[in-house]
Amino acid sequence: MRDRVPAAIVTVGTELVRGLRLDTNTAEVASALWITGYDVAETVSVPDSVDAIARTMSRLVDTYPLVVVTGGLGPTHDDVTREAAARALSRPMEREPSLEKALLTRGPGHTDPQARAQMLRQAELVSGARPIAPSVGTAPGQVIATGTSTLVLLPGPPAEMRPMVREFLGSGHHAAHVRTLRCLGITETDAQLAAQAVLGNSPGIGLTVLATPALVDVVLFDEGADDPALDEAATRIAAALGTACYSTDGSTLAETVLAHARSTGDRLATAESCTGGMVASALTDVPGASDVFAGGVVAYSNDVKTSLLGVPPSTLAAHGAVSEETALAMATGALGLGATCAVATTGVAGPTGGSPDKPVGLVWIATASRHSQGTAREYRFPGDRTGVRARATAHALDALRRALLVP
Amino acid sequence: MRDRVPAAIVTVGTELVRGLRLDTNTAEVASALWITGYDVAETVSVPDSVDAIARTMSRLVDTYPLVVVTGGLGPTHDDVTREAAARALSRPMEREPSLEKALLTRGPGHTDPQARAQMLRQAELVSGARPIAPSVGTAPGQVIATGTSTLVLLPGPPAEMRPMVREFLGSGHHAAHVRTLRCLGITETDAQLAAQAVLGNSPGIGLTVLATPALVDVVLFDEGADDPALDEAATRIAAALGTACYSTDGSTLAETVLAHARSTGDRLATAESCTGGMVASALTDVPGASDVFAGGVVAYSNDVKTSLLGVPPSTLAAHGAVSEETALAMATGALGLGATCAVATTGVAGPTGGSPDKPVGLVWIATASRHSQGTAREYRFPGDRTGVRARATAHALDALRRALLVP
Repeated sequence: MRDRVPAAIVTVGTELVRGLRLDTNTAEVASALWITGYDVAETVSVPDSVDAIARTMSRLVDTYPLVVVTGGLGPTHDDVTREAAARALSRPMEREPSLEKALLTRGPGHTDPQARAQMLRQAELVSGARPIAPSVGTAPGQVIATGTSTLVLLPGPPAEMRPMVREFLGSGHHAAHVRTLRCLGITETDAQLAAQAVLGNSPGIGLTVLATPALVDVVLFDEGADDPALDEAATRIAAALGTACYSTDGSTLAETVLAHARSTGDRLATAESCTGGMVASALTDVPGASDVFAGGVVAYSNDVKTSLLGVPPSTLAAHGAVSEETALAMATGALGLGATCAVATTGVAGPTGGSPDKPVGLVWIATASRHSQGTAREYRFPGDRTGVRARATAHALDALRRALLVP
Repeated sequence: MRDRVPAAIVTVGTELVRGLRLDTNTAEVASALWITGYDVAETVSVPDSVDAIARTMSRLVDTYPLVVVTGGLGPTHDDVTREAAARALSRPMEREPSLEKALLTRGPGHTDPQARAQMLRQAELVSGARPIAPSVGTAPGQVIATGTSTLVLLPGPPAEMRPMVREFLGSGHHAAHVRTLRCLGITETDAQLAAQAVLGNSPGIGLTVLATPALVDVVLFDEGADDPALDEAATRIAAALGTACYSTDGSTLAETVLAHARSTGDRLATAESCTGGMVASALTDVPGASDVFAGGVVAYSNDVKTSLLGVPPSTLAAHGAVSEETALAMATGALGLGATCAVATTGVAGPTGGSPDKPVGLVWIATASRHSQGTAREYRFPGDRTGVRARATAHALDALRRALLVP
């Protein structure tokens, strides 16, 4: 294994340790550090308390050559990371005139003296710190060399933090030595056993399998292996996983579907009942989706299924909204949006609306296409409303992917 | 402040410290602990390494009366939390026959001896531990009294962890003493100053302000104050925040919109271009949305805007897809889905497609309603594609909320 430099990450915020807010900064900084050649050994969240932050900083700068802290650099009363760093390192704080000037120029023009004084707290530097100018927002970052460690303070809002992470890590970083094989329709254990069977005891290749309710990622990373060895292992494992593996280059399922459609010259549309717009959202989340995505109908009521998608009222009456026949009619109707390949979802997401005959979790997914006869498949998804909708969305995208594979 | 018991949370997973996976368990356990009367002083994530986990456990059980660990209890090779706990507490591991029997009954019927042996690792208990039977999945939890602390091991998958958190915390917990005022269209600083001005130096009430790109939450929590005092403060702060505050009971914006529509007898529809289904998704994420949500159109192409929403081609030709006129025509067209109140979004989400005239971030949001003349408003949102779409979605929901307030 190439020598990675140990590092730690601290995220600051009472809202984090109380569970009021999900911490996304840790994952984002961790990923940037890994790619740049660091090995994050520990991540910690602490409340907005000078004591707690200072104690954690002291422990970590004594242990790791790099400690990155996010949060608590803003103007409000509970932003105390600056004070904590000063205390942890036994250094004074200094008001930096150039930062003060930048704040008065860039910041919101507070006429209220209290708001103005609060805002100017952001010009306080731990003595000896190098400031990182903000490209978004007003709070500067700080890089502090302690002698044995580097302590980096970054603002908490992700949009403000992100450009600073890039700045202090520099652009001359190692390339990532990770391969991700993304799968759907296979269990975590089966994916792991399949990958292990291929790897045997390949030295130098690490394996992690990550599962969400609908998706399974097989992640290979270097523990000494070089790029060609990783590529070769990824290719062989992808072959073993078969059509369950939808991407080997890190693309999401939606990105894969759009790329397929671009290459086949297809134009896509969606007709959603139980997923309520999530399939269209996932597709349009990808930049440039408008090339191949015409649009969709969220057909929540039966009237909309009939008026916009042309589902015959007799079909709804005879088979119900959650049925193979309705799913097929919805998909066929969605071709009318100017599409050559369309997917439809209709199901019982819960928690109410289930019956012995059509329980919560029952979902029909259908595709219609210029390539072939329409097809529909029944699913019985476990989980609550959120889980059923997430699984139905993933399988709807996968149904589109498979429909586009048919020549 | 009532005496809260200090606690710590550890989440285990190499994927967490490498940033391959977002840690949602910490927030979920933290929230459950806070509500039950604990004070989470620190949360830590460590990789799947016996050394790292054991070292962190040792440090935390020496400091806190309760330490909750999630992850690393599954069957695969990198599930080593059991071994780490045994090492941290210097206790042996014991194979528990009743757990083994349950695994053979409940678990997947592996015929492969390797898979079977892996699965049975989940029957290993740290000596003296009380097992928590799984109601989802196969991995049991463990509760270990160390003399001065309680160490609780829970499986990592949220669906498996969740029922165990409820079980070990019991049902006789304190009620939550938190009030959340949710706002849109106000800055974090303005919300904080408004709340502080009302609170003065009210003893016993803590204040935190949480902001996402579009939304601001003002959170009040007890530091000694009782429920009536919290309620009174929340009411006064809500009044000071005015119509920017959309909920005082923790309801989301989508829940608030649906509740308003239910009370006014309105039926809702959406017409989305740049948000691509996100507004419909947010509404249908709420159980029971079908009562008041008819459906929506994701009108990504101009053809769909015309064919399904009746936007005149002349409007598109004269003003463009991203314009006040098109937004109004889309909203009016969406009333045709059987709705009495509809919202439309059209904008430039980026990263491409912007022009000097219509830059990335420009979004028009319009409403049409039986109550009043249609209205449209122009926004210039900062941020990347994800940020622009998130802000547009929040403001579209807010436009619906405000349209429903008109008598």
